[in-house]
Order: sequence, then C-alpha cells, then structure tokens
Amino acid sequence: MRVLVALGGNAMTAPDGGARQQDQVAAITRAMESVADLVAAGADVAVTHGNGPQVGNLLAKNELAAATLPAVTLDWCGAQTQGTIGFSVLNALDDALRARGVARRTAAVVTRTLVRGDDPGFANPTKPVGGYLPESRARELIGRGQSWRDCGPLGWRRVVPSPDPVEVIDAPAVSALADAGFVVVSGGGGGIPVVRDGGRLRGVEAVIDKDLAAALLARTLGADVLVIATDVEHAVLGYGTPDARPLGTVTVSELRRHAEEGHFAGGSMGPKVEATCRFVEGGGTRAVITSLGHITHAARGAAVGTIVVPDQVVSVVPDQVVSTGGRD
Amino acid sequence: MRVLVALGGNAMTAPDGGARQQDQVAAITRAMESVADLVAAGADVAVTHGNGPQVGNLLAKNELAAATLPAVTLDWCGAQTQGTIGFSVLNALDDALRARGVARRTAAVVTRTLVRGDDPGFANPTKPVGGYLPESRARELIGRGQSWRDCGPLGWRRVVPSPDPVEVIDAPAVSALADAGFVVVSGGGGGIPVVRDGGRLRGVEAVIDKDLAAALLARTLGADVLVIATDVEHAVLGYGTPDARPLGTVTVSELRRHAEEGHFAGGSMGPKVEATCRFVEGGGTRAVITSLGHITHAARGAAVGTIVVPDQVVSVVPDQVVSTGGRD
Repeated sequence: MRVLVALGGNAMTAPDGGARQQDQVAAITRAMESVADLVAAGADVAVTHGNGPQVGNLLAKNELAAATLPAVTLDWCGAQTQGTIGFSVLNALDDALRARGVARRTAAVVTRTLVRGDDPGFANPTKPVGGYLPESRARELIGRGQSWRDCGPLGWRRVVPSPDPVEVIDAPAVSALADAGFVVVSGGGGGIPVVRDGGRLRGVEAVIDKDLAAALLARTLGADVLVIATDVEHAVLGYGTPDARPLGTVTVSELRRHAEEGHFAGGSMGPKVEATCRFVEGGGTRAVITSLGHITHAARGAAVGTIVVPDQVVSVVPDQVVSTGGRD
Repeated sequence: MRVLVALGGNAMTAPDGGARQQDQVAAITRAMESVADLVAAGADVAVTHGNGPQVGNLLAKNELAAATLPAVTLDWCGAQTQGTIGFSVLNALDDALRARGVARRTAAVVTRTLVRGDDPGFANPTKPVGGYLPESRARELIGRGQSWRDCGPLGWRRVVPSPDPVEVIDAPAVSALADAGFVVVSGGGGGIPVVRDGGRLRGVEAVIDKDLAAALLARTLGADVLVIATDVEHAVLGYGTPDARPLGTVTVSELRRHAEEGHFAGGSMGPKVEATCRFVEGGGTRAVITSLGHITHAARGAAVGTIVVPDQVVSVVPDQVVSTGGRD
C-alpha cells in the first residue's frame, strides 16, 4: 500500500508558530516519529510538506537585508526550504527508522511544479505571504511589480498568485526512488512553481497550495492513499457555527456537496477538502484528513479522521464501509 | 562511460564573483550548455557543484538580519544552496538537453556527507567563510562559540572546520536515479556535513571540500571518470614561479610526487589534485582538471587539461597513453 503523507508547514514549527531553526528541527523530529510508525507498519510511504512559516522567515530576512543585498525571488525561497526541511526530515526520519529497526533508506528530491503562465491566479494574486510592512515600503515594492494589500492596523502584506498545479515535473524521479524502496521527501511547499516560457522553464513568484500539489503527486506516484496531516482530527461540517460536527467517513460526492454548500469556506480546510476529492476522483483508494498522531491508523481507514472514499465503495459493497471507515 | 562533473562555486557566479540571483542563473545556464554537450555525446553524466560564494551571500544576509531574526547554522546555509542551485541547474539542464533533442531526465537530490566528530579539523578551524566584520562584532560571535581570525585592514573573518568526507550518505539515492537514466545533481557544496552523535545524525557547522567529496561520490557511483571543471585549463607545476608550466597527462604517482614537492601549495589547486589522486587510486579510470569549455573532450581523455591516469596505464600499455592523453 503506497501512502503519500502531506505534512502542514505548521507541523514543522514551534507550538507558538515560531519558525526558529531549533523549533523546526524539534517539530520535524516529533512528526517523523509518526511517519516512521507508518513505515514500520509496512506502508510504502512518501512524504510531502508545506513551508509557509519557513518562507515567511526567509522573506523577513530578505527584507531586513534588502538595503545591502538584493532579495531573492519567492521561487528561490521555496527552493531554500526544500533544502532545509528536506535535510531535517532526512536526519529525523533516518534516526526514527533506525530506532524501529526498519532498514529503509530515505531521499529528498528538489521538486518543481509546472503551472500555466495564463493561470487566472496571476491576474489576481490573493495568497498572503510573509510579514507586515508600513505602507510606504509596501508602495515601494508595488512599484517594483509586487502586489501588497492594506491589512489595517497591522500594516500591509504581500499577496502572490496561487496557481493550480498542472504537473509535478520531478515526479518521475520520486517514482523511481519510491520504486527502488526509498522513503522519498518531495514536493515541499507544493513544489517550486515554474512556467514554460517560450519552451524554457522559468521559476515564477507564486505559491502552490501544497495539498493540491500533494493530490497531483499522489496520483502520479500511483499512491493508494493520500493522508493530509494537519492540526485537527477531522474536517468539520458547519465549521464555526453552533451546528459544527466532525465529518467521519464520507464519499467523494457527498464531500463535494458539503463543499458546494459552503461548509468549509470559513477555515483553511477548503483546499484540503478539494485535494482529497481530486485524489479520490482521480482513482485513489482513500484520502484522509487527520492529525499527525493518527496517521498510521488513518492510512488503513480505521481511525479518527475524515476519510474520503469513492462513491462505489458505499453503493456496491456496503459491508466494507465499516472496515474502511470504522473507528479504532 | 559514467562521468561525474564537479563544477566550482565560482562557475556559478558573475565574472566579478557577484552571487546575485540573476548572475547565478546566467552562469549556471552557460555551464549547463557544456554539461548538455557531454550528455549529448553519450556519457552517463552526474553533476556536483561548489557553493562558496552562495553560502557567503547567505551568511551576509543572516548577519544583516541578526538583530531581529536568529541566523541559521552553516549546515542549513548549505542545504539552502542545494535547493537554489539544484533548482537552477535542473531548469537550465532540462532546457539545454531539450534544445539538443536529448531525452534524458534530470533530478536534484538533497545530499548529506558524513564526517567524523573527532576529525582534527574541528579542533583547528581553517576554512574562511563569508565576509569581513569589525573586531567588536567578531568578538561577540566568538563568545557564542564561533571562530574568527584577524585579517588585518579588511577586518575579521569567520573560519570553520573543513573535515574530511567519510561517506556520502545519500549516494545510494543518487546511484538509483543514475541507474534509472537520470542526470543527477547531488553533493552540492561537498554535501551538508553531518556527524553521528550517539547514533543520531546531526548537522555540523563545517564546510566539506567539494572536490574531495566529489572524489568519494564518484567512486561510490562507480564513475569511470571524474572531471573537475574550474577556471583554468590545467594544473600548473611551479605555480606562481618563473618556471610554471601546465601539466598534461600524468600518472597518479607522478602527480603525488609533484604535490609532495609543493608544486600546488600556492593556489587553490591542492584539494583538486588530492581529489584526482584519491579517485584514480580508488580505481577510477581517469580524473581530469580542466576548464568548463573543455569538459566534453576532457572526459574522453583527448583534450586540453590535466589528465590523471593510473600508473599501470603508462607502464604496461604505453601506446594507450597517446590515445588516452592526446590533445585535440
């Protein structure tokens, strides 16, 4: 059973959201205990991860140094975090696997994700990145082609395009390594966004949603299961309302209906729900949204979590729903 | 014929040594034209690269931001450059291969290199990194455990250990990808230095010589040829003296003798010479030191360059010396 585990960028920072180096390493070390448990349970695991807080840190550093050293672009910030997070994950995962007596090798792959140069996201940047700056500085940066929004008393904040991922360019390398038995870390931050510009590949200043990229990567790798590990145990219907209730096992059609009714609009759950739908609609066996501590059981469909299954699983073999979607 | 090409960090910066992002990309794009030529000529190519100027840039940025954001450690700086240089190499190499009609895939692997925690380098840091700072600030950083040296009128400069590479931990991933037909970029900056600390892997603040790491990586990958691409066409005997003369084809024993006589002590050629000796002594067919423009012919042993061959090639089958070491 091949499982792609997608870890939130926040799962790799301190509880207070701080992205200091030692906090990142400590959080990654904790997360890799769970991932190693899943590997030890016999799953063929691949790992992907977010990088929001880490990129925020790099942007802040760029800004502090900007008077002396030119800032690097957002695609390079993403590449930098693939290096540092990949490095930290490799060390922690190797240690955790060794502690469990599991003789699996690990690898981390620099990963590019192709987006369309005419994606509507480029005309309408909406994804906030980095910290807040005074209006005067924001206007300077707007003058250099960036987009910034007035966020009231906090100051101004940069917004960037979040184009839809079209192809994980480096997925074949990830596949080759996974097939050779490696636990592969890839697609960090949704992949480094590139466009084809007159036939040539070029990085672009954008942020790809890491869960949507994970859905695409999981399908490309032929994964059976996509696990989105986040800081809550379930997607929640009526999130933020008095009628809020956790969502357990659900067919992809039901989940699409809930999404259309606006159940996930209020939080950050929308793209995660969309990612699980895309993965299952594309042929995946099961997609799970749950917290990090539950991923081993969740991957087997027997756990706390929102477990998204194809429609036919429910309609054709209802008995399997219990074993697929039961709780432990 | 498997060839590992080692590119200097300076081959990826502007002619003035500037490591601005666009200069790096432009230089990498030029370098990949040569690498793609070598691939198009039929060689099974792997790529490694230095990162000195790039790490220098990151250290400078860390220092400029240090009052607000804590600096990351040197191993993380190395990981960051593996991300950005890997990303840029992938794009440029994919473009250059496509332009030549070569259907080879590329991949970049985050690479750790194991060093010994008791390497003598740790007791005696000698490798200068980053820029110059005033004595007062250097003394502050010395107080936090760093080593800095007084460099006279320029100011103080940080020195770090340069331990000998023991094992390229991620070489099996590079091998698996190379065997699957990928042109793999790995071992950037000599690899991110790690030690085993009570059985656990831990990054350390050090810089591994990228050519010594390349020699180790080349042997691990079963490469036939190691090509060290630099900014000169040959190693030079009597470098810096009136008797200076370029060194062409040479056996490894002869080269060791020249090195012991101090011929390469005056420049940066010492570690390159040592790397070629280690590679050939370890069983490699040929090691070459030459400039980037000559790598395709040099890999075949018919080119401008210093070409290091095993002793028996000369002593046993002298006719082959001409074809192995002839000039084009």
